[in-house]
Amino acid sequence: MKLEKLIGDILRKKRWTLSIAESCTGGLICDRITDVSGSSGYFLGGMVTYSNESKAKYLGVPSDDIKRHGAVSPQVAKKMAQGVRRSFDTTFGLSTTGVAGPTGGTKRAPIGRVFIGLSEGRRTWVWKLDLKGGRREIKKKASEKALQYFYEKLIPGDFLK
Amino acid sequence: MKLEKLIGDILRKKRWTLSIAESCTGGLICDRITDVSGSSGYFLGGMVTYSNESKAKYLGVPSDDIKRHGAVSPQVAKKMAQGVRRSFDTTFGLSTTGVAGPTGGTKRAPIGRVFIGLSEGRRTWVWKLDLKGGRREIKKKASEKALQYFYEKLIPGDFLK
Repeated sequence: MKLEKLIGDILRKKRWTLSIAESCTGGLICDRITDVSGSSGYFLGGMVTYSNESKAKYLGVPSDDIKRHGAVSPQVAKKMAQGVRRSFDTTFGLSTTGVAGPTGGTKRAPIGRVFIGLSEGRRTWVWKLDLKGGRREIKKKASEKALQYFYEKLIPGDFLK
Repeated sequence: MKLEKLIGDILRKKRWTLSIAESCTGGLICDRITDVSGSSGYFLGGMVTYSNESKAKYLGVPSDDIKRHGAVSPQVAKKMAQGVRRSFDTTFGLSTTGVAGPTGGTKRAPIGRVFIGLSEGRRTWVWKLDLKGGRREIKKKASEKALQYFYEKLIPGDFLK
Protein backbone atom coordinates (compact mmCIF):
# COMPACT_ATOMS: atom_id res chain seq x y z
CA MET A 1 0.00 0.00 0.00
CA LYS A 2 1.21 3.50 -0.79
CA LEU A 3 2.57 5.64 2.04
CA GLU A 4 -0.03 8.39 1.53
CA LYS A 5 -2.78 5.81 2.09
CA LEU A 6 -1.13 4.30 5.19
CA ILE A 7 -0.57 7.78 6.63
CA GLY A 8 -4.14 8.80 5.83
CA ASP A 9 -5.56 5.77 7.62
CA ILE A 10 -3.67 6.63 10.81
CA LEU A 11 -4.48 10.35 10.71
CA ARG A 12 -8.18 9.67 10.16
CA LYS A 13 -8.36 7.03 12.87
CA LYS A 14 -6.58 9.22 15.42
CA ARG A 15 -8.33 12.42 14.33
CA TRP A 16 -4.98 14.08 13.72
CA THR A 17 -4.45 16.78 11.08
CA LEU A 18 -1.64 17.66 8.70
CA SER A 19 -0.28 20.66 6.82
CA ILE A 20 2.69 20.76 4.47
CA ALA A 21 5.26 23.38 3.42
CA GLU A 22 7.21 22.46 0.32
CA SER A 23 10.12 24.12 -1.34
CA CYS A 24 12.19 21.76 -3.53
CA THR A 25 9.43 19.14 -3.87
CA GLY A 26 7.22 21.85 -5.38
CA GLY A 27 3.79 20.48 -4.46
CA LEU A 28 4.41 16.79 -5.07
CA ILE A 29 3.85 15.78 -1.43
CA CYS A 30 0.55 17.70 -1.30
CA ASP A 31 -0.39 16.05 -4.59
CA ARG A 32 0.28 12.57 -3.21
CA ILE A 33 -1.53 13.20 0.08
CA THR A 34 -4.59 14.54 -1.78
CA ASP A 35 -4.69 11.52 -4.10
CA VAL A 36 -6.33 9.70 -1.19
CA SER A 37 -10.10 9.92 -1.10
CA GLY A 38 -11.21 11.52 2.15
CA SER A 39 -7.92 13.38 2.63
CA SER A 40 -9.83 16.64 3.03
CA GLY A 41 -10.79 15.28 6.47
CA TYR A 42 -7.23 15.50 7.82
CA PHE A 43 -5.18 17.49 5.29
CA LEU A 44 -5.97 21.16 5.88
CA GLY A 45 -3.62 22.64 3.33
CA GLY A 46 -0.16 23.31 2.09
CA MET A 47 2.17 25.98 0.84
CA VAL A 48 4.70 25.85 -1.92
CA THR A 49 7.14 28.52 -0.80
CA TYR A 50 9.61 28.83 -3.62
CA SER A 51 10.74 32.36 -2.81
CA ASN A 52 12.51 33.36 0.40
CA GLU A 53 9.96 36.16 0.87
CA SER A 54 7.11 33.65 1.01
CA LYS A 55 9.00 31.49 3.51
CA ALA A 56 9.17 34.55 5.77
CA LYS A 57 5.67 35.90 5.07
CA TYR A 58 3.58 32.72 5.32
CA LEU A 59 5.70 30.43 7.45
CA GLY A 60 7.37 32.96 9.71
CA VAL A 61 10.86 31.75 8.82
CA PRO A 62 13.14 34.55 10.10
CA SER A 63 14.97 36.25 7.21
CA ASP A 64 17.97 36.18 9.51
CA ASP A 65 17.94 32.35 9.51
CA ILE A 66 17.83 32.31 5.71
CA LYS A 67 20.67 34.84 5.49
CA ARG A 68 22.83 33.08 8.03
CA HIS A 69 22.23 29.41 7.18
CA GLY A 70 20.82 29.56 3.66
CA ALA A 71 17.33 28.51 2.52
CA VAL A 72 18.56 24.93 2.23
CA SER A 73 19.49 24.26 5.84
CA PRO A 74 18.23 22.24 8.82
CA GLN A 75 17.32 25.50 10.58
CA VAL A 76 15.01 26.61 7.76
CA ALA A 77 13.44 23.13 7.38
CA LYS A 78 12.65 23.22 11.10
CA LYS A 79 11.13 26.71 11.00
CA MET A 80 9.08 25.82 7.90
CA ALA A 81 7.59 22.75 9.59
CA GLN A 82 6.78 24.69 12.76
CA GLY A 83 5.47 27.63 10.76
CA VAL A 84 3.07 25.69 8.55
CA ARG A 85 1.75 23.73 11.52
CA ARG A 86 1.06 27.01 13.34
CA SER A 87 -0.48 28.65 10.24
CA PHE A 88 -2.96 25.85 9.58
CA ASP A 89 -3.31 24.90 13.27
CA THR A 90 -2.69 21.20 12.59
CA THR A 91 -1.33 18.31 14.67
CA PHE A 92 1.62 17.86 12.32
CA GLY A 93 3.60 20.11 9.99
CA LEU A 94 5.83 18.55 7.33
CA SER A 95 8.40 20.50 5.30
CA THR A 96 11.03 20.17 2.59
CA THR A 97 13.78 22.48 1.44
CA GLY A 98 16.53 21.50 -0.96
CA VAL A 99 18.21 21.78 -4.33
CA ALA A 100 16.46 19.78 -7.07
CA GLY A 101 18.90 20.91 -9.76
CA PRO A 102 20.12 20.64 -12.43
CA THR A 103 21.37 24.18 -11.71
CA GLY A 104 21.53 26.17 -8.48
CA GLY A 105 23.92 23.93 -6.56
CA THR A 106 26.55 25.53 -4.33
CA LYS A 107 29.32 24.19 -2.11
CA ARG A 108 27.15 24.68 0.97
CA ALA A 109 24.02 23.29 -0.69
CA PRO A 110 24.93 20.96 -3.57
CA ILE A 111 22.37 19.50 -5.99
CA GLY A 112 20.45 16.71 -4.27
CA ARG A 113 20.85 18.13 -0.75
CA VAL A 114 17.42 18.13 0.90
CA PHE A 115 16.23 18.73 4.46
CA ILE A 116 12.94 17.29 5.70
CA GLY A 117 11.27 18.82 8.76
CA LEU A 118 8.49 17.45 10.94
CA SER A 119 6.83 19.40 13.74
CA GLU A 120 4.43 18.11 16.39
CA GLY A 121 3.62 19.90 19.64
CA ARG A 122 6.90 21.05 21.12
CA ARG A 123 8.95 18.51 19.16
CA THR A 124 10.62 18.97 15.78
CA TRP A 125 12.71 16.53 13.78
CA VAL A 126 14.96 17.28 10.82
CA TRP A 127 16.47 14.77 8.40
CA LYS A 128 19.22 15.41 5.87
CA LEU A 129 19.32 13.74 2.46
CA ASP A 130 21.88 13.69 -0.34
CA LEU A 131 20.02 12.42 -3.39
CA LYS A 132 21.19 11.55 -6.87
CA GLY A 133 19.36 11.93 -10.18
CA GLY A 134 17.66 14.45 -12.41
CA ARG A 135 15.26 17.13 -11.21
CA ARG A 136 12.12 14.97 -11.33
CA GLU A 137 13.93 12.06 -9.70
CA ILE A 138 15.17 14.20 -6.82
CA LYS A 139 11.65 15.60 -6.28
CA LYS A 140 10.20 12.08 -6.26
CA LYS A 141 12.85 10.61 -3.95
CA ALA A 142 12.59 13.55 -1.52
CA SER A 143 8.78 13.25 -1.41
CA GLU A 144 8.95 9.51 -0.82
CA LYS A 145 11.51 9.95 1.96
CA ALA A 146 9.45 12.69 3.63
CA LEU A 147 6.38 10.46 3.70
CA GLN A 148 8.46 7.51 4.89
CA TYR A 149 10.00 9.44 7.81
CA PHE A 150 6.60 10.84 8.75
CA TYR A 151 5.03 7.37 8.64
CA GLU A 152 7.80 5.91 10.79
CA LYS A 153 7.10 8.55 13.43
CA LEU A 154 3.36 7.78 13.26
CA ILE A 155 3.39 4.00 13.55
CA PRO A 156 4.63 3.69 17.13
CA GLY A 157 1.34 5.40 17.87
CA ASP A 158 2.74 7.11 20.93
CA PHE A 159 2.17 10.70 19.87
CA LEU A 160 0.22 12.97 22.15
CA LYS A 161 0.26 10.50 25.06
CA MET B 1 6.58 19.86 -25.60
CA LYS B 2 4.79 19.86 -22.27
CA LEU B 3 2.59 22.82 -21.37
CA GLU B 4 4.60 23.65 -18.24
CA LYS B 5 7.72 24.02 -20.39
CA LEU B 6 5.96 26.17 -23.02
CA ILE B 7 4.47 28.37 -20.30
CA GLY B 8 7.82 28.64 -18.54
CA ASP B 9 9.55 29.77 -21.73
CA ILE B 10 7.05 32.61 -22.21
CA LEU B 11 7.09 33.72 -18.57
CA ARG B 12 10.89 33.79 -18.46
CA LYS B 13 11.19 35.63 -21.75
CA LYS B 14 8.61 38.25 -20.77
CA ARG B 15 9.81 38.49 -17.14
CA TRP B 16 6.31 37.68 -15.92
CA THR B 17 5.68 35.85 -12.66
CA LEU B 18 3.13 33.28 -11.52
CA SER B 19 1.49 32.06 -8.31
CA ILE B 20 -1.05 29.26 -7.95
CA ALA B 21 -3.93 28.47 -5.56
CA GLU B 22 -5.13 24.89 -5.75
CA SER B 23 -8.05 23.19 -4.14
CA CYS B 24 -9.21 20.05 -5.98
CA THR B 25 -5.95 19.59 -7.91
CA GLY B 26 -4.16 19.38 -4.56
CA GLY B 27 -0.70 20.59 -5.60
CA LEU B 28 -0.43 18.86 -8.97
CA ILE B 29 -0.22 22.11 -10.96
CA CYS B 30 2.53 23.45 -8.70
CA ASP B 31 4.28 20.11 -9.07
CA ARG B 32 4.16 20.29 -12.86
CA ILE B 33 5.27 23.93 -13.03
CA THR B 34 8.23 23.20 -10.73
CA ASP B 35 9.33 20.21 -12.82
CA VAL B 36 10.82 22.77 -15.18
CA SER B 37 14.41 23.70 -14.43
CA GLY B 38 14.66 27.43 -13.76
CA SER B 39 11.01 27.71 -12.69
CA SER B 40 12.12 29.39 -9.45
CA GLY B 41 12.80 32.43 -11.64
CA TYR B 42 9.12 33.02 -12.41
CA PHE B 43 7.10 30.77 -10.07
CA LEU B 44 7.01 32.51 -6.70
CA GLY B 45 4.82 30.04 -4.87
CA GLY B 46 1.53 28.32 -4.39
CA MET B 47 -1.08 27.42 -1.85
CA VAL B 48 -3.09 24.26 -1.49
CA THR B 49 -6.16 25.55 0.29
CA TYR B 50 -8.20 22.47 1.07
CA SER B 51 -10.14 23.99 3.95
CA ASN B 52 -12.55 26.91 3.63
CA GLU B 53 -10.74 28.65 6.50
CA SER B 54 -7.48 28.67 4.53
CA LYS B 55 -9.25 30.03 1.44
CA ALA B 56 -10.38 32.97 3.59
CA LYS B 57 -7.18 33.41 5.60
CA TYR B 58 -4.54 33.20 2.86
CA LEU B 59 -6.43 34.14 -0.29
CA GLY B 60 -8.91 36.60 1.13
CA VAL B 61 -11.91 34.71 -0.27
CA PRO B 62 -14.88 36.21 1.62
CA SER B 63 -16.57 33.58 3.84
CA ASP B 64 -19.79 35.08 2.57
CA ASP B 65 -18.97 34.04 -1.01
CA ILE B 66 -18.28 30.48 0.16
CA LYS B 67 -21.52 30.38 2.15
CA ARG B 68 -23.63 31.83 -0.62
CA HIS B 69 -22.15 30.15 -3.71
CA GLY B 70 -20.29 27.16 -2.24
CA ALA B 71 -16.52 26.54 -2.32
CA VAL B 72 -16.92 25.01 -5.79
CA SER B 73 -18.22 28.03 -7.68
CA PRO B 74 -17.04 30.51 -10.30
CA GLN B 75 -17.11 33.26 -7.67
CA VAL B 76 -14.67 31.42 -5.40
CA ALA B 77 -12.36 30.41 -8.29
CA LYS B 78 -12.20 34.09 -9.25
CA LYS B 79 -11.44 35.29 -5.72
CA MET B 80 -8.81 32.55 -5.28
CA ALA B 81 -6.98 33.60 -8.45
CA GLN B 82 -7.10 37.28 -7.50
CA GLY B 83 -6.14 36.48 -3.89
CA VAL B 84 -3.08 34.39 -4.67
CA ARG B 85 -1.86 36.91 -7.24
CA ARG B 86 -2.13 39.64 -4.62
CA SER B 87 -0.52 37.52 -1.88
CA PHE B 88 2.55 36.64 -3.92
CA ASP B 89 2.52 39.91 -5.89
CA THR B 90 2.81 38.14 -9.25
CA THR B 91 1.78 39.00 -12.81
CA PHE B 92 -0.62 36.04 -12.95
CA GLY B 93 -2.64 34.07 -10.42
CA LEU B 94 -4.05 30.68 -11.39
CA SER B 95 -6.63 28.78 -9.33
CA THR B 96 -8.68 25.58 -9.19
CA THR B 97 -11.66 24.59 -7.09
CA GLY B 98 -13.75 21.49 -7.69
CA VAL B 99 -14.91 18.06 -6.63
CA ALA B 100 -12.39 15.29 -7.38
CA GLY B 101 -14.55 12.59 -5.82
CA PRO B 102 -15.27 9.75 -5.48
CA THR B 103 -17.31 11.15 -2.57
CA GLY B 104 -18.40 14.69 -1.73
CA GLY B 105 -20.53 15.36 -4.80
CA THR B 106 -23.75 17.35 -4.41
CA LYS B 107 -26.46 18.49 -6.77
CA ARG B 108 -24.95 21.98 -6.94
CA ALA B 109 -21.39 20.66 -7.24
CA PRO B 110 -21.34 17.14 -8.68
CA ILE B 111 -18.19 15.00 -8.90
CA GLY B 112 -16.03 16.22 -11.76
CA ARG B 113 -17.23 19.84 -11.58
CA VAL B 114 -14.18 22.11 -11.57
CA PHE B 115 -13.71 25.87 -11.94
CA ILE B 116 -10.41 27.31 -13.17
CA GLY B 117 -9.58 30.96 -12.42
CA LEU B 118 -6.93 33.19 -13.96
CA SER B 119 -6.18 36.71 -12.75
CA GLU B 120 -4.00 39.34 -14.42
CA GLY B 121 -4.08 43.03 -13.63
CA ARG B 122 -7.74 44.07 -13.52
CA ARG B 123 -8.88 41.10 -15.63
CA THR B 124 -10.07 37.72 -14.39
CA TRP B 125 -11.26 34.72 -16.38
CA VAL B 126 -13.15 31.69 -15.09
CA TRP B 127 -13.71 28.39 -16.92
CA LYS B 128 -16.10 25.64 -15.96
CA LEU B 129 -15.34 21.96 -16.47
CA ASP B 130 -17.37 18.79 -16.03
CA LEU B 131 -14.86 15.97 -16.00
CA LYS B 132 -15.27 12.23 -15.89
CA GLY B 133 -13.07 9.61 -14.23
CA GLY B 134 -11.60 8.57 -10.91
CA ARG B 135 -10.03 10.94 -8.40
CA ARG B 136 -6.52 10.87 -9.91
CA GLU B 137 -7.91 11.20 -13.41
CA ILE B 138 -9.99 14.26 -12.49
CA LYS B 139 -6.98 15.87 -10.80
CA LYS B 140 -4.85 15.23 -13.90
CA LYS B 141 -7.46 16.43 -16.40
CA ALA B 142 -8.19 19.58 -14.37
CA SER B 143 -4.47 20.39 -14.09
CA GLU B 144 -3.93 19.87 -17.83
CA LYS B 145 -6.93 22.07 -18.67
CA ALA B 146 -5.77 24.83 -16.30
CA LEU B 147 -2.34 24.92 -17.95
CA GLN B 148 -3.93 24.79 -21.40
CA TYR B 149 -6.27 27.74 -20.75
CA PHE B 150 -3.42 29.71 -19.21
CA TYR B 151 -1.16 28.96 -22.18
CA GLU B 152 -3.86 30.00 -24.65
CA LYS B 153 -4.14 33.36 -22.89
CA LEU B 154 -0.35 33.77 -22.97
CA ILE B 155 0.36 32.99 -26.62
CA PRO B 156 -1.29 36.03 -28.22
CA GLY B 157 1.43 37.88 -26.32
CA ASP B 158 -0.78 40.93 -25.90
CA PHE B 159 -0.80 41.03 -22.12
CA LEU B 160 0.26 44.20 -20.36
CA LYS B 161 0.26 46.22 -23.57
